[in-house]
Amino acid sequence: MSLKDRFYTYIENLQNTITSKLEEVDGSGKFKEDLWKRAEGGGGRTRVIENGAVFEKGGVNISAVHGALPQSMQNYFGVEDADFFACGLSLVLHPKNPFVPTVHANWRYFEMYNKQGDIVDQWFGGGQDLTPYYLFEEDAKHFHAICKQACDAHDSTFYPQYKKRCDNYFWNAHRNEARGVGGLFFDYLKSTENMGMEDWYNFVTEVGDSFLDAYIPIVLKRKELDYNQKHRDWQEIRRGRYVEFNLVHDKGTLFGLKTNGRIESILMSLPPHVQWRYDHLPKKGSEEEKLIQVLKHPKDWV
Amino acid sequence: MSLKDRFYTYIENLQNTITSKLEEVDGSGKFKEDLWKRAEGGGGRTRVIENGAVFEKGGVNISAVHGALPQSMQNYFGVEDADFFACGLSLVLHPKNPFVPTVHANWRYFEMYNKQGDIVDQWFGGGQDLTPYYLFEEDAKHFHAICKQACDAHDSTFYPQYKKRCDNYFWNAHRNEARGVGGLFFDYLKSTENMGMEDWYNFVTEVGDSFLDAYIPIVLKRKELDYNQKHRDWQEIRRGRYVEFNLVHDKGTLFGLKTNGRIESILMSLPPHVQWRYDHLPKKGSEEEKLIQVLKHPKDWV
Repeated sequence: MSLKDRFYTYIENLQNTITSKLEEVDGSGKFKEDLWKRAEGGGGRTRVIENGAVFEKGGVNISAVHGALPQSMQNYFGVEDADFFACGLSLVLHPKNPFVPTVHANWRYFEMYNKQGDIVDQWFGGGQDLTPYYLFEEDAKHFHAICKQACDAHDSTFYPQYKKRCDNYFWNAHRNEARGVGGLFFDYLKSTENMGMEDWYNFVTEVGDSFLDAYIPIVLKRKELDYNQKHRDWQEIRRGRYVEFNLVHDKGTLFGLKTNGRIESILMSLPPHVQWRYDHLPKKGSEEEKLIQVLKHPKDWV
Repeated sequence: MSLKDRFYTYIENLQNTITSKLEEVDGSGKFKEDLWKRAEGGGGRTRVIENGAVFEKGGVNISAVHGALPQSMQNYFGVEDADFFACGLSLVLHPKNPFVPTVHANWRYFEMYNKQGDIVDQWFGGGQDLTPYYLFEEDAKHFHAICKQACDAHDSTFYPQYKKRCDNYFWNAHRNEARGVGGLFFDYLKSTENMGMEDWYNFVTEVGDSFLDAYIPIVLKRKELDYNQKHRDWQEIRRGRYVEFNLVHDKGTLFGLKTNGRIESILMSLPPHVQWRYDHLPKKGSEEEKLIQVLKHPKDWV
């Protein structure tokens, strides 16, 4: 089987594994599935959960699209008249309880072809990152420890490198703060002397396989914690920053919006209830301020 | 007095007039004032209202900034080493009652100088537009009638021209719908054979003076209407589209975010409580769907 078919089969299975586990953890919410087709070639399987006991809103989506490379992507990659194939799994989960962090993950594979149909370029990309509303240091440490473990099985330089890229990528520049406490971000993983495409496949799928281990223990530990309206308000205000990042800075989101992607599948990443208040600042020394300090100065967790 | 000083005095007075009237209409909410300075030159007077009886959140801000034209603006205007002055009033009001529309307005003046300090370019810009959550045709007609009246006093071609520009500008392209029912939008109003800068000053200030007449009668007519959670949910979902427009498409907002503008003054435009639901579609024949039809196919109101 070709690499693209193997990776697509992998994300199909991973979507099943992840949505099953999330439904089990949620206990009452169920994913709703939408199959969609892209006019120019390919399509996707969107699975969205809303108003669960644990997950207030979230999506775990896969897609595989192909055809002529859109003009905007030709410009971006500096190529002409190419064809492409891209597939990936994207997930975002917005829990109801403000003590359970939001999580985002994405694993993807891209191939570019010349007009004869030969592969002229190919790469993997992706990552996973955590966005808490209240900071439990042990949760950030656990998430990063699992990320590091998946990386270290392949190369001890990967974790520090992709952890730093994650901090850089999810930087909400106009707020001068990180979106969350980070994790991993990698892109353009192409064949090199040390890592062939098969090695990258093994690496990316190892990260994908680590997702539930990285996130679920945190959910289980925090999902029953008592919270009040004050905690909830803070969560909704911080979700506003999540929206700002995704709509102002996230290349993937903007790319999708501007190239006629399936809007509802892309914007499933937006939180269910969000607040904006003018010039809202948490009190000195509060738990809310403790979070902000860490977002302003990303730190090493492992 | 120079044109820039006269226009700045005009917007200072207009800010006072508008915030006084809005406080009177609100009956309980008061504007909070923040004065701020821009490190590179100039500053502003931000006035924000939150949790009023009528206005859930809103801002009526003025600013006057000057100095070396930032690099990004040099690129945008295709000039080098210029200095600039810009001043304007920007307002956005998000009412609590879903039957009262959100409104936005902006009137601004820009001057560009060479290194000798001579004015090498100057123009006015601005407009005002209405974003209802439920469509009362008579409200849209009233708002547009006042806009037309202000325009017609100067040139009968202005209203059709600036009404159309407004529909084009506030187009939420990724949703394939307008942000609201429009109004006026104009920019780069420069000296021509028919209209000198003095004439444009008279035109722009006439539009500014028309704002309260355009908006307040609608507020007074709708602010006491009964509403329930269903109406409120719809308002919050539609406010999500407002956020999407402002963060993804609005040149003014993005420009401010990317050139180190005062973030809290820029993002005062974002609504207080917002919802995103997956693939939410109003019922056929409902009042909610009636709004969507008009947003998908902008119409002539007068």
